[in-house]
Amino acid sequence: MFQSFEVKIEPENAGPRIERLRTEMARVGLDGFLVPREDEHQGAYVPPSSQRLMWLTGFSGSAGVVLVLKDKAIIFIDGRYMLQVRQQTDLAVFSYENLSAIPPATWLEQHGTGLKIGFDACLHTISEVLSLRKALDRVGGYLVEVEKNLVDIIWNRHPNIPFGQVTLQPVELTGRTAQEKFAEIQKAITAEGASATILTDPSSVAWCFNIRGTDVANTPLPLSFAIISVRDRPQLFIDQHKLGKNEESYLQNLCNILEPVEFEENIRQLAQSGDVILLDPSLTAENLRLVVEKAGGKIREGIDPVQLPRAVKTQAELAGARKAHKRDGAALVRFFAWLADQRPGTQDEISTTQKLEELRSQTAETENSKLEDISFDTISGAGPHGAIIHYRVNTQTNRPLMNGELYLIDSGAQYRDGTTDVTRTVAIGDVGEEKKRCFTLVLKGMIAISIARFPVGTSGQDIDVLARIALWKNGFDYAHGTGHGVGSFLSVHEGPQILSRTGKQKLLPGMILSNEPGYYRESAFGIRIENLLVVQVPEIPDGGDLPMLGFETLTLCPVDRNLILPELLDREERDWLNSYHDTVYRKLAPMLNEAERDWLAWATAPLEVLFVP
Amino acid sequence: MFQSFEVKIEPENAGPRIERLRTEMARVGLDGFLVPREDEHQGAYVPPSSQRLMWLTGFSGSAGVVLVLKDKAIIFIDGRYMLQVRQQTDLAVFSYENLSAIPPATWLEQHGTGLKIGFDACLHTISEVLSLRKALDRVGGYLVEVEKNLVDIIWNRHPNIPFGQVTLQPVELTGRTAQEKFAEIQKAITAEGASATILTDPSSVAWCFNIRGTDVANTPLPLSFAIISVRDRPQLFIDQHKLGKNEESYLQNLCNILEPVEFEENIRQLAQSGDVILLDPSLTAENLRLVVEKAGGKIREGIDPVQLPRAVKTQAELAGARKAHKRDGAALVRFFAWLADQRPGTQDEISTTQKLEELRSQTAETENSKLEDISFDTISGAGPHGAIIHYRVNTQTNRPLMNGELYLIDSGAQYRDGTTDVTRTVAIGDVGEEKKRCFTLVLKGMIAISIARFPVGTSGQDIDVLARIALWKNGFDYAHGTGHGVGSFLSVHEGPQILSRTGKQKLLPGMILSNEPGYYRESAFGIRIENLLVVQVPEIPDGGDLPMLGFETLTLCPVDRNLILPELLDREERDWLNSYHDTVYRKLAPMLNEAERDWLAWATAPLEVLFVP
Repeated sequence: MFQSFEVKIEPENAGPRIERLRTEMARVGLDGFLVPREDEHQGAYVPPSSQRLMWLTGFSGSAGVVLVLKDKAIIFIDGRYMLQVRQQTDLAVFSYENLSAIPPATWLEQHGTGLKIGFDACLHTISEVLSLRKALDRVGGYLVEVEKNLVDIIWNRHPNIPFGQVTLQPVELTGRTAQEKFAEIQKAITAEGASATILTDPSSVAWCFNIRGTDVANTPLPLSFAIISVRDRPQLFIDQHKLGKNEESYLQNLCNILEPVEFEENIRQLAQSGDVILLDPSLTAENLRLVVEKAGGKIREGIDPVQLPRAVKTQAELAGARKAHKRDGAALVRFFAWLADQRPGTQDEISTTQKLEELRSQTAETENSKLEDISFDTISGAGPHGAIIHYRVNTQTNRPLMNGELYLIDSGAQYRDGTTDVTRTVAIGDVGEEKKRCFTLVLKGMIAISIARFPVGTSGQDIDVLARIALWKNGFDYAHGTGHGVGSFLSVHEGPQILSRTGKQKLLPGMILSNEPGYYRESAFGIRIENLLVVQVPEIPDGGDLPMLGFETLTLCPVDRNLILPELLDREERDWLNSYHDTVYRKLAPMLNEAERDWLAWATAPLEVLFVP
Repeated sequence: MFQSFEVKIEPENAGPRIERLRTEMARVGLDGFLVPREDEHQGAYVPPSSQRLMWLTGFSGSAGVVLVLKDKAIIFIDGRYMLQVRQQTDLAVFSYENLSAIPPATWLEQHGTGLKIGFDACLHTISEVLSLRKALDRVGGYLVEVEKNLVDIIWNRHPNIPFGQVTLQPVELTGRTAQEKFAEIQKAITAEGASATILTDPSSVAWCFNIRGTDVANTPLPLSFAIISVRDRPQLFIDQHKLGKNEESYLQNLCNILEPVEFEENIRQLAQSGDVILLDPSLTAENLRLVVEKAGGKIREGIDPVQLPRAVKTQAELAGARKAHKRDGAALVRFFAWLADQRPGTQDEISTTQKLEELRSQTAETENSKLEDISFDTISGAGPHGAIIHYRVNTQTNRPLMNGELYLIDSGAQYRDGTTDVTRTVAIGDVGEEKKRCFTLVLKGMIAISIARFPVGTSGQDIDVLARIALWKNGFDYAHGTGHGVGSFLSVHEGPQILSRTGKQKLLPGMILSNEPGYYRESAFGIRIENLLVVQVPEIPDGGDLPMLGFETLTLCPVDRNLILPELLDREERDWLNSYHDTVYRKLAPMLNEAERDWLAWATAPLEVLFVP
């Protein structure tokens, strides 16, 4: 099993730990200290040895930050974690703010008059520090860099730093060699008027060098840094214990291999040599900016030049994604066919999660592939747990799948040829009209995105509403974006493309995005339906004037027909669903046994046609 | 008639005028000179005496700017004017750029290396000048303020400055006294950390002081400036010839009345007195910033504090708007009933425009009101002219309404109780399937906005796509926003609310917006359907979770059923249209004679119900 259901979180630890942190704050003369979820790579994928926020507060979500003051401690989390944070942390110790509405900078501008707030410059990006500093400036406060992270000082029994083995990602799957990628990055560096760039996001390093790692759970990241210069060989900063013979010789051909402790020194040299260094202020640690600045170096702020090329998948990557989704779809169908056979009350959130992982693993083996990992901890939520957007079951919260309830399962796999991420919500027994009405409204949103066409130049924010309008008309909404980018055997959350109100990146052919509207009724039920999509150039309709883009659906898995009220769908929506189900059947049936195939035939049968005047 | 159809534009004048401008440029040592459409009030409503862009180039659109260089002259216009500009100007003298894609700053950054570009600091906003200066800085160019506008030097036979009479807008129609408005503005000034503000937008002045004017065509603006301070009496800078006895005594009670020539001097004094002056950089002339700066004053940049209060209409203003739209609807129905009786080919774009204005005037009189003005020059486009988004007919372009063609008419009225703006496209005879398909797609978009519901906090940009998605699915789009704000017996284009990809202003209850998707096939036909809407709090649907907003439709005029393919509409869309038509009939029928009522009954009959499986 790639996931454990043990209760690792003990809210009662937080009180004493916060008090010890306050002692440290007093020692160095601080009124407050910021502890973000991120590590020095600034991403959501953090090894246990860097999970300071969880150790300190108990909160295990993938994004957040705590501001510890003398007399209070505030955890800032986004809409997904509003319920979870209250379950995992001690309400007597913490208060909570919505990270999107009131980020720490805004809070400090309102309440931080005269405060001296400490932070670890390795764990905050340049942009974050800038906005924190501006906010505190306005109210006569100070932002103070600490020499050693205060949490690290008080953290006894600190987990070991990971030394996960590195593997090579073959060009048959990436579609481009590392050399080709370097050349493209160098071009982008030059176009920005710079001569070098620093990569601190391990998924940028992995993509560039065509390597993968095993340092963190769920995402094949090799924790590492790199410097790409337009003149010199690329420099890769990685612990050499992670490299086998093959990998070492591949990389020696490609670049200079250095130890991570040498990273700062090499940046200093780069800065002193007169290079103009392209830094992404939203990805790079403030610490590195300070290194460059102190060395008298020149910085050009810009977007990580790896982001966009990584997001636009090659034909090889898309072919891999299609294969991965077929394999994943077969495992999902086996799972839902099995689940349909279980009597309500006999399975629970953990047993279903275990079953799905087992079926993914077996199916991969049968199909000459391998389940390398799950792409995130499965969200397996029965009944009211479905309303916890990023619910993570453990032995204490585990709940049977009861008659009359909805069951939501959001899961994904890491295969060598692709990363998957899929959510289905199914009825356990007879669930009544209201849940079906809500499910059908969510489905309308999911279909609206699937069938959308849009002009070249359209961004995620321009079309996000299509997934919401049916819900809005009924007074409903969901407190998360509609979709995120997905990597190729890499991060299941990958930028810069995003389907949300704030998604400014233009959608480009080859980008993979999730499409996952939902609806959550607190303490009652949750619904989410998620497919992965690829931005594609669709056939031009009769007489069209403009080059349009649209989506190809990658995910292959039936949508529970038991939950659909066909009269709430219009003809176009029904046609899409029937055609999608037909595709699911045709692609997956050959991989299944007779019983599974029979179930799939039933699950993908066309919706009953009603005459709707 | 409030509009004339004479050809006032002579493209052949442009060549010699541009040459004379170049002589002036050479005299003061400039490589280029910018001539915007705006005057010192920075708006789209400009009296003939300030229409420098039109005098110089021949282009009469409501937005644009020309950059005259030694060897070329480029007119920058937005998508609406792409066709019109080519018809009105000399193609041998000018080239053209899309103002939204490549504004002058961008163009200069690409082509302006080392150039010295002159501008009149009274005619460009602070933001514009900042971006122009930045762009030229990057390529070693210079932006140079001229002492006297070069166009004014060469403009002989300059039209007179207007002295339009000012009238009072009674509190029964505004819903708030000027004193109440001042108090609100003063609160907003204080909230921004300032102690005074400068109003240069005449519609801000008109709204604040509850006055209206007759200085420019179509919009009851009193050309004037004002200073509102939190300590002193408001100062109004207006030519006192515009004031009758009543108006003078009303205003003397309210504020200090000063001459416009005293405006700069009073700003200088304000700056020297230590006041912090709130300036909207996107509305205020660079010139005024320079006055404050030179006097050592303090500027706080912010949004014009009048904008938002003006946009959110009072109940009195909304009651007025509903009355104005009923009256306007009766005139429109009389017009379309009359038009339906005309044989194809017997009427033309001018005669229909004249007829509509005549009916508006007559209907207003019958209903004890008065057509004060039209709210803009009618866009009356038959056949291919419909594709010119802001087409303005004249005696040379005038075209009969021919059988088999579409006729688009976009018009509006200024009544004391409200400003209207409405577009309908109708079939002249039998127009065939393709035009009907396009019309129905546009109608789907118009309905989608009309029936939208959205959470509090939603902006125009979040919902704009609803008006476009049906067109996009067919490879079509339109090169303009979906809707603009509308004033109360004020500007027919009023901010800050806007329905478009760039509309960041949150939609608030009481805001009036147009809803006008379209489709334009160059040299063939044009379609636009426009209603005015008010943002309202709708009834909360069964079981809704969130406070939602929606729209009330103000415009009362049938949509041509001859142009609708009912099978392309879904049930919700058909239901909306039938219910809208029912409302139109019930509200307008009592105002009409029998023949008109019969026509309206036919025009608003329910769509034939088809069984669509």
